[in-house]
Formats: sequence, C-alpha cells, structure tokens
Amino acid sequence: MKRCWLTLGRKDHISELDASATPGWRGGAARARKQTDGLRDQLLGLQERLFAESRQKLLVVLQAMDTGGKDGTIRRVFSGVNPNGIRVARFGRPSELELAHDYLWRAHARVPERGQIVIFNRSHYEDVLVVRVNSLVPEQTWRRRYAHIRDFERMLVDEGTTILKFYLHIDRDEQRERLQARLDEPSKNWKFDEHDLVQRRKWDDYMLAFEDAIRETHTDEAPWYIIPANRKWFRDWAVMSILVDALGRMDPQYPKPDFDPGSIRVE
Amino acid sequence: MKRCWLTLGRKDHISELDASATPGWRGGAARARKQTDGLRDQLLGLQERLFAESRQKLLVVLQAMDTGGKDGTIRRVFSGVNPNGIRVARFGRPSELELAHDYLWRAHARVPERGQIVIFNRSHYEDVLVVRVNSLVPEQTWRRRYAHIRDFERMLVDEGTTILKFYLHIDRDEQRERLQARLDEPSKNWKFDEHDLVQRRKWDDYMLAFEDAIRETHTDEAPWYIIPANRKWFRDWAVMSILVDALGRMDPQYPKPDFDPGSIRVE
Repeated sequence: MKRCWLTLGRKDHISELDASATPGWRGGAARARKQTDGLRDQLLGLQERLFAESRQKLLVVLQAMDTGGKDGTIRRVFSGVNPNGIRVARFGRPSELELAHDYLWRAHARVPERGQIVIFNRSHYEDVLVVRVNSLVPEQTWRRRYAHIRDFERMLVDEGTTILKFYLHIDRDEQRERLQARLDEPSKNWKFDEHDLVQRRKWDDYMLAFEDAIRETHTDEAPWYIIPANRKWFRDWAVMSILVDALGRMDPQYPKPDFDPGSIRVE
Repeated sequence: MKRCWLTLGRKDHISELDASATPGWRGGAARARKQTDGLRDQLLGLQERLFAESRQKLLVVLQAMDTGGKDGTIRRVFSGVNPNGIRVARFGRPSELELAHDYLWRAHARVPERGQIVIFNRSHYEDVLVVRVNSLVPEQTWRRRYAHIRDFERMLVDEGTTILKFYLHIDRDEQRERLQARLDEPSKNWKFDEHDLVQRRKWDDYMLAFEDAIRETHTDEAPWYIIPANRKWFRDWAVMSILVDALGRMDPQYPKPDFDPGSIRVE
C-alpha cells in the first residue's frame, strides 16, 4: 500500500508534523473522493465476508482534538456499510458507574464480537489524554497506563481482533476555523461547546500527551496511523485505504458448509 | 401517508393475508426503488436532526420467519445512515447469563439512548414466538408475557421512545424458494441452517403465534405494521415510508444554543 499516514520519528514532535500534507497521494480532491468511493465498494464486500465468516474481529480507534473530524470520518467512511455488522462506541465523559471501575472496564465491555467491526469514537486513550492534560489523576497513575493499554491490546489481538488506531491530525489554525464555523453557521451551533475553548488553550499540552501516547502504545500488533486531517478528502481517503488494506490482509472467507448443500431439498 | 401495510382484522388470520400484496403502491419495482432512494435522503436529514436534538429515541422492532428479510431490510433501508446515530441489536439464542435473568432483561439493556435509532433484529417477541412454538415454557408463562410487553413498551414510550414494530410477512412458498436458494447458490450457503428446516415444519404454529402476539401487543403507542414481504422492493419501500413518516411526526429540531454565537470569537 502507498503510505498515507505520517510517521513519528524518535525525535519528531507531533506539533511539527504537517497537518495539510497528503502523503502517498498525487492528484486533487475530486480524484481522491472518487477513489474513496471505489474503495468503499471494496469495503462493503470485505465487510460482508467478515460478517459471514464470523471468526475475526476488527477494532478501529479514532482519536483527535475537538473538531478533528472523528464524527465526519465515521459518516464518510462507514456510511453504506451494512449496519448489521458495524457498531460505533462513543466514549464521552464517564458515568458514575464507569468511574467506579477501572478505566479499561467500559472499553472492554464494547470491543467487537466475532464478525463485527467496532469503531471507538474516542476510547480508553482519553485516560492518558484529557485525564493527563487536566491533571485528573497523578502522573504516576497515567504514566503506568501505557503498559496496561499495550497489554490489553495485545490480549485482544492474541484472541483474534485486528486493531487499527487513527490519530486525525489537525493544526491549531484549522481548529480555530472549524470552531468559528460552528459559531457562524446556525446549522452547526449545536456542535459548539464552550468547554472546547477551555481545552483549546491547552493545545500544546495535548500535543505532548498525544505524542507520548502514540509513542508508548504504537506496536506491531496495534499500530497508530497519524493521518493529516486538515483536508477532509485526504483524511477520508487515507483512513479508507488503510482500512481496506487491513481487511484485505485479514482475508475473511465465506465459511465452508458442514453439510452437503446438494443433498438437501426444501419441502 | 398512503397505507403500506396490512391490517389484522378481528377475524383475520395472518396466514390468509397476501404476502405478495402491495397496498398503497401503484407502479412497478423500479419506481418503488427510486422512491425508496428519495426517501432515504429524507431519512438521513431527519436522523441528523434527531442526533443533534439528542432528546427523542426511536426503537424499530423487526420480526419475521426465517428468510423473511430482516437482515436485508436493515441493509437496504438503513445503509447510508450515519453510523454514529444508529445501532442494530441482534437477539439470537440467549446466553447462559441472559437465561439467568427475566426475558426482558436483555432487551431493556439495549434500548436506544437519546438521539439514537436502534433496530432490534429479532427482539423480546421471540419469547412469545419461538419459545411458545417449541414449548420452552408452559402456556401460562408465555401467555402472561403479552401484558408484560405492553407494560414495558408503554413505559418506554412514556419516557420518550417512539416504537415501530414490523412483521415482515412472507408465505410458505416464498420461504421454500429462499431456503432453497441458500442451498443452490454457493455464496449463500453460509446463511443456511438446518435448524431452519425444523422450524419450517412448524409453520402453522408460528403463524398462530405471530397472530396472537400482534393482536395482543398492537397498541396506539407501539403499533405493529404487517408488511407484505414477498416482494423485496415493496417491503423496503413500505418500511422506509413508515419510518420517514414517523420521524417526520417526531419532528426533531436542532437545539437552540444556550449562548450567543455572535458574542464569541475563537482565538
């Protein structure tokens, strides 16, 4: 596959990665959208086989700053997939019941079952991101969570789940424009949350938190993809490409019948 | 709305209702498919507003005989809806944990939250259908469940859920053809389950069970729609029509901001 994500080298800082880049893509937006539509047809076929096979599982983790495009990516990449075989799990502010458990509890409860694709819209990573930036737990607590998360994800992979983790990377200017648009366009007002402005002031802290989280939990079995996401058409194409590539490698198969279809006549 | 379902009169038997009928529709399959696509655009807009409003809930119950088209209806009616706001709950053979609770427990756990559409692919109705036909509990047990179900659904409606219940009605000949197709077409073999043939022999018992269930639990607040489903294009159009009509009556609105959007500038 052509590389369509950014790599975080040992000395790189996320804030220095170009959020408007289009790695692996030559050509404009229109061609990317068309190719994304073509890939969606492949996705639909692969998903049907995954569902029929009912053996493997796919977990897609989406993380981003506010306005980074998590909802939009889900709408644009996954609309059209048979709702029977796909589920979105949203991780908002934890409930009392969730807070009364360890932080992985609510994530574990929502991982995919056989044959399913589950998309985590935010995830257990919030517990080393928003929780860290806002000092909701001491450093020693969030710091040891990287190891928990690696262990948790390795277990899921060992037990038959493929994990793809996407960080949708926008820059500070892009976020300003998108937040302002939520104020300026009445049909988008409902998406605006004043709390987002508070978090925006902590931009640099978030970049550092993402950087550490990605570095510490990027593994061969559960890799992170840093998707430049200022350009929505590129973001959609990149996520779709990685997804279709991964499903292709999973290579789900229609199960062989354990009976002889030719020997049965329905009366 | 033009009526696009069948009505079960006091003396009617479900088995006598014409599963190939197309009530309320004049014109062929092609025109119906086109109109269904147009209605889907309306559905997408209404669903977005339901999600934004985050106040009302919609529960769609799908029941049918094997091969009746539950999966196909979900695929064809709901594909394209933003996966963020829709969820399918499948009710298969109950697990040990589910059997250790009352029969409504697993259904209640999966009802929609605010702003969401949830589709029950099978449902709590299995506990007065398959359970009755196969004598898994005594008659006095399944018979009193009608009242439980009415009470349960009324509570959901009182608390802000709209409920639409669809029985997809095929006839015995149509089921034979569809089961046979699952044997004859290799790509469909995976859908074939020999157990379905056992249930097929109990066709008349199932019709009676559906008839009683629909009659006993058809209420103003949680109505049943009997959809003639031999013709898939009609089934899809009818379900889509009823759905769009119901969402239109729910009339979800973008919430009014509780701040003055013009007074805020994003820095």
